[in-house]
Amino acid sequence: MNYTKVTVKGGARTELHDMLSLTGAEISVNEMPAGGCVPFVHAHKQNEEIYLILSGKGSMIVDGETVALEAGDWLRVSPAAKRQMFAAPDTGVKYICIQVKAGSLGGYSATDALI
Amino acid sequence: MNYTKVTVKGGARTELHDMLSLTGAEISVNEMPAGGCVPFVHAHKQNEEIYLILSGKGSMIVDGETVALEAGDWLRVSPAAKRQMFAAPDTGVKYICIQVKAGSLGGYSATDALI
Repeated sequence: MNYTKVTVKGGARTELHDMLSLTGAEISVNEMPAGGCVPFVHAHKQNEEIYLILSGKGSMIVDGETVALEAGDWLRVSPAAKRQMFAAPDTGVKYICIQVKAGSLGGYSATDALI
Repeated sequence: MNYTKVTVKGGARTELHDMLSLTGAEISVNEMPAGGCVPFVHAHKQNEEIYLILSGKGSMIVDGETVALEAGDWLRVSPAAKRQMFAAPDTGVKYICIQVKAGSLGGYSATDALI
């Protein structure tokens, strides 16, 4: 298959790896209500995580440090960092999370393109 | 650095690899006015591309087939596929493009997490 397309309309969590036949990433689309959180702290063995806040507000506690997040913010978290995502107390948050294997990218853009 | 954060407020194209110290992906945030297009067809040597339409409407021609795109749509394009992105004639489009090395992901989510 040279391409795969899916439309994500909403929902607490949509995982795209299988839906999009991804081979180099897992991506989830997440909505968290005001006052909500991911109910555990986690880290990763090999994967770098990249978050984009699509709308709303929240925060991420990374290794004990609180990072405020709002629409337009991008956050990269190293595999070993201990992280937990929170929505703001009075505002929900919609975000995507991209998992990729740390150090896996070779060339990109001009050095990987064929024009 | 256990994390890096940047805020993208807009602009024709913002490339995040260096800004976010990414090691497993390149990500660009793009805005294209109505009637605009990427002015060339391209493919990739090794990288899978994943597009998310943030707002507006456009289309991608993939190997000669036109794929309509609007907000909420995700599109995976295989490395070898020849692609060109267009905004709709009457509506601009804002989108992100994620480049990852095809086949690079090992475990993910439950199999890569440490809780």
